[in-house]
Amino acid sequence: MEQELVLLGFWTSPYVMRVQIALLEKGIQFHYKEEQDIFQDENKSELLLKSNPIYKKVPVLIHNGKPICESLIILQYIDEVWKQEPQLLSHDPYNRSRARFWIDFFDNKIADCGRRTWAGKGEDQQAAKSEFIECLKLLESELGNKLYFEGDHFGLLDIALIPITCGFYTYEKLYKFSVEKECPRVMEWVARCNQRESVSKTLPDPNKLFDFVLNIRRRFGIE
Amino acid sequence: MEQELVLLGFWTSPYVMRVQIALLEKGIQFHYKEEQDIFQDENKSELLLKSNPIYKKVPVLIHNGKPICESLIILQYIDEVWKQEPQLLSHDPYNRSRARFWIDFFDNKIADCGRRTWAGKGEDQQAAKSEFIECLKLLESELGNKLYFEGDHFGLLDIALIPITCGFYTYEKLYKFSVEKECPRVMEWVARCNQRESVSKTLPDPNKLFDFVLNIRRRFGIE
Repeated sequence: MEQELVLLGFWTSPYVMRVQIALLEKGIQFHYKEEQDIFQDENKSELLLKSNPIYKKVPVLIHNGKPICESLIILQYIDEVWKQEPQLLSHDPYNRSRARFWIDFFDNKIADCGRRTWAGKGEDQQAAKSEFIECLKLLESELGNKLYFEGDHFGLLDIALIPITCGFYTYEKLYKFSVEKECPRVMEWVARCNQRESVSKTLPDPNKLFDFVLNIRRRFGIE
Repeated sequence: MEQELVLLGFWTSPYVMRVQIALLEKGIQFHYKEEQDIFQDENKSELLLKSNPIYKKVPVLIHNGKPICESLIILQYIDEVWKQEPQLLSHDPYNRSRARFWIDFFDNKIADCGRRTWAGKGEDQQAAKSEFIECLKLLESELGNKLYFEGDHFGLLDIALIPITCGFYTYEKLYKFSVEKECPRVMEWVARCNQRESVSKTLPDPNKLFDFVLNIRRRFGIE
């Protein structure tokens, strides 16, 4: 039986980009379906609502009719089902635990700062700016002198983190600061990752993303 | 070299209990160190602050000097390092993804309701009550007619979920409702899990936990 693999996504979602990059890295064929709007449930596709009834969020990977939700869970599923190289998670249990820890950290902290950047204003936005820069500095220190987060190969942690970087331009414009000045090693890592086809094909144009964020802020009456 | 395995914990933490149950299930020897207070950083041990500088939270499993943080990450680490039976995560990637999904759901939703039960009052506590019962009903439906969450064996999802149940007595007293009446299958599953030595040895007395919650609410001036 031919495998049927469908990815439900939305072009601005870093969580969807993670899955796209992982599938491209492994050379797995999939059919991508773009949602029209991910902000209001009534505009979401029937397929998304049926496939992820708990969270109603992208990404959802549907493999032979079975839905898998939540990006980190999807990435691990991909690595466990398609065992060909590149292996996304390290073979070493301790390194695996480190990768999972930093992805979890990113999902809880940086993503929260990100949401407050899109949706916040005034003092809360200023607090989000400080926390965002603090998080970036932790990542800078975790990266150290390594080429990639797990050493000399592009792995799960890189795949999970690189999508947020296409929003750096937006953060810089809104917050009036320079990521490169604060975290030069992170920016070298971004340039290194962008040389990979899986990444450059997936990440959207930062200017287009910035316009989208401004539109969303207007749509929800934030500005 | 003899393996050195230390677990930093606190007796009321369901996340710590998960790790204890997993270690007992696998028959792994470990040294347990109880924190004196997990609510204020100045009362936490040097070892905890050094081992988990990002979150400063229990549980931390320290294996030959290397700290692993976050309960779900620790459980997967245990399963990957000590490969003896019982295997905590299913061998089937789709079942693994389902277990990870529900643990993630639990960690985000039920734990949030739990915190608001301990710390909230008035309308927010009432909202937390409704959301908590709704979450329990989702679990009831996910459990269905199965003996355990993943079928006929006690697995990762059971290990992750069972510790919350020693707080049911507290929820029932504070919220004035009956878990058994709302979710009879969940309560049958609780009784089934409690027959296992790993569970009965780990879970604290519900009355003692209730007294602790009342003390904490007084300590932080909630009542």
